[in-house]
Amino acid sequence: MSVLIVGSTALDSIKTPSAENPRLLGGSASHAAVAASFFSPVRLVGVVGDDFPKSYLQLYKRHRIDLDGLQILPGKTFHWSGEYEMNMNNRRTLLTELGVFETFTPSLPNSHQRSAFVLLANIAPALQHHVLNQMQRPKFVVADTMDLWLNIALPDLLKLLKRLDGFVLNDSEAHQLTKEDNVFGALRKIHKLGPRYVIIKKGSHGSILSGPDGFFLCPAYPLHKVVDPTGAGDSFVGGMMGYLASEKNPIERNIRRAMIYGSVVASFCCEGFGLKRTTRVTRTDIERRVTELQKLTKF
Amino acid sequence: MSVLIVGSTALDSIKTPSAENPRLLGGSASHAAVAASFFSPVRLVGVVGDDFPKSYLQLYKRHRIDLDGLQILPGKTFHWSGEYEMNMNNRRTLLTELGVFETFTPSLPNSHQRSAFVLLANIAPALQHHVLNQMQRPKFVVADTMDLWLNIALPDLLKLLKRLDGFVLNDSEAHQLTKEDNVFGALRKIHKLGPRYVIIKKGSHGSILSGPDGFFLCPAYPLHKVVDPTGAGDSFVGGMMGYLASEKNPIERNIRRAMIYGSVVASFCCEGFGLKRTTRVTRTDIERRVTELQKLTKF
Repeated sequence: MSVLIVGSTALDSIKTPSAENPRLLGGSASHAAVAASFFSPVRLVGVVGDDFPKSYLQLYKRHRIDLDGLQILPGKTFHWSGEYEMNMNNRRTLLTELGVFETFTPSLPNSHQRSAFVLLANIAPALQHHVLNQMQRPKFVVADTMDLWLNIALPDLLKLLKRLDGFVLNDSEAHQLTKEDNVFGALRKIHKLGPRYVIIKKGSHGSILSGPDGFFLCPAYPLHKVVDPTGAGDSFVGGMMGYLASEKNPIERNIRRAMIYGSVVASFCCEGFGLKRTTRVTRTDIERRVTELQKLTKF
Repeated sequence: MSVLIVGSTALDSIKTPSAENPRLLGGSASHAAVAASFFSPVRLVGVVGDDFPKSYLQLYKRHRIDLDGLQILPGKTFHWSGEYEMNMNNRRTLLTELGVFETFTPSLPNSHQRSAFVLLANIAPALQHHVLNQMQRPKFVVADTMDLWLNIALPDLLKLLKRLDGFVLNDSEAHQLTKEDNVFGALRKIHKLGPRYVIIKKGSHGSILSGPDGFFLCPAYPLHKVVDPTGAGDSFVGGMMGYLASEKNPIERNIRRAMIYGSVVASFCCEGFGLKRTTRVTRTDIERRVTELQKLTKF
């Protein structure tokens, strides 16, 4: 089944202690779409400017990503620039130029409105609402978010939570949203806000699913070296939704496996700048790490 | 098989935002011994003063802990006092009175010198050496440590590492010892210092085993409320060594299961002050959580 993904499509300039990489293909939707493409047909909804490199459009196409929902408008593509510290955990934004993203209104082609699986990747909650409003009875809707929206668009986000099957956020955002130090306490509070499934991402410590059948502790794949963690969270939800759409039935057993696949794609994402490593990965590479994760957690 | 455990035997006065608990039974050896006692006969090596409450000696005995190696000397028992912040992660020491612990020289009864499994729980590396020197061909020796010894007794600790089968430390200590931000990089460096098996504890994020057969990602049992985390790490290694001694053969498959059992006992430890919860636990309670952990990690 297809998965529809809306989110940001951006150019990322990323600085780490060891390298500088200007204008990489980035944005939550780009990472999520490429990650999902290993498992299911993907429909991308986003906006870029007329400065958007042709090579990046070709990259999407190589991953058989349907671009009918990608608007190409006069103006500049959203450009984000950030710098990582030595430990690769602390990140600081150097520059944000919204460009055509500032006035983006996602508009779904008719063909997209019946997508069964919908991933509202990280983007303003108002735009996530706007996409949902255009959907016709989707089967499974998941949203991701970021601290910015908790700060400046909380009412929109709270309204969105009531429309979701699943909600994904990281541990610091969960704390920010619920004021709970304990991650399981936070999960309980987030369920009360609407979503049946809640996933809290903990970076290299893995992630936790909470649903009607209880918890699932999803491991992160062991990485000896993180080159660039930008987009890892987006790759996780993208891979997860792509796999889930391929399984068709969003029951807990499949969601668990979907998280494992998401976790593996996220691990590849961290091994290169932007999408450089992810786009070189094969399904066989992914299956190998899934099998490894099975061995790594067996007792 | 028996497990010999040397470490501190102390009185802990523990303050949290919600309660104050003076002079609880504490110390690395107390926690580790009680944890191990669920699985194997335990031989405790330590020292207490003549102020040590009889009820605590009885508590050890109820857990069938062999006290032939526990010295009771004139003077005061080691007394530690600490305070936890609201999030239960940050701890600050209010008071440390070494008492009889200051001049402690562990001396092993003849009957103890042939113990197959040895846990050198957190105590000065010089004393850990001193115990090892008295052992006759132990089968499997594991040591725990703390940041203090990395700061003031690093040469002793480095010498100890060459004598161990397994070494256990937490993630911040691993970083301190190796200067590695990446936990898998740290594990690799610690192997080079001697131990065949290295375990890095990550608190509520679980622990990682690194050995000749690769890694094992051991989950922490999900706790909705942490009452007092003091001794959780000691309970983890104690439970692990107790279980391993019961399996007799320290092969990786057994070490993995032993970590799971240690993790479960540590979870009970966190649910009460000092040893209050742990001492009320039954083997059935433990097995129930082990089964739960299996369900929580299955995919």
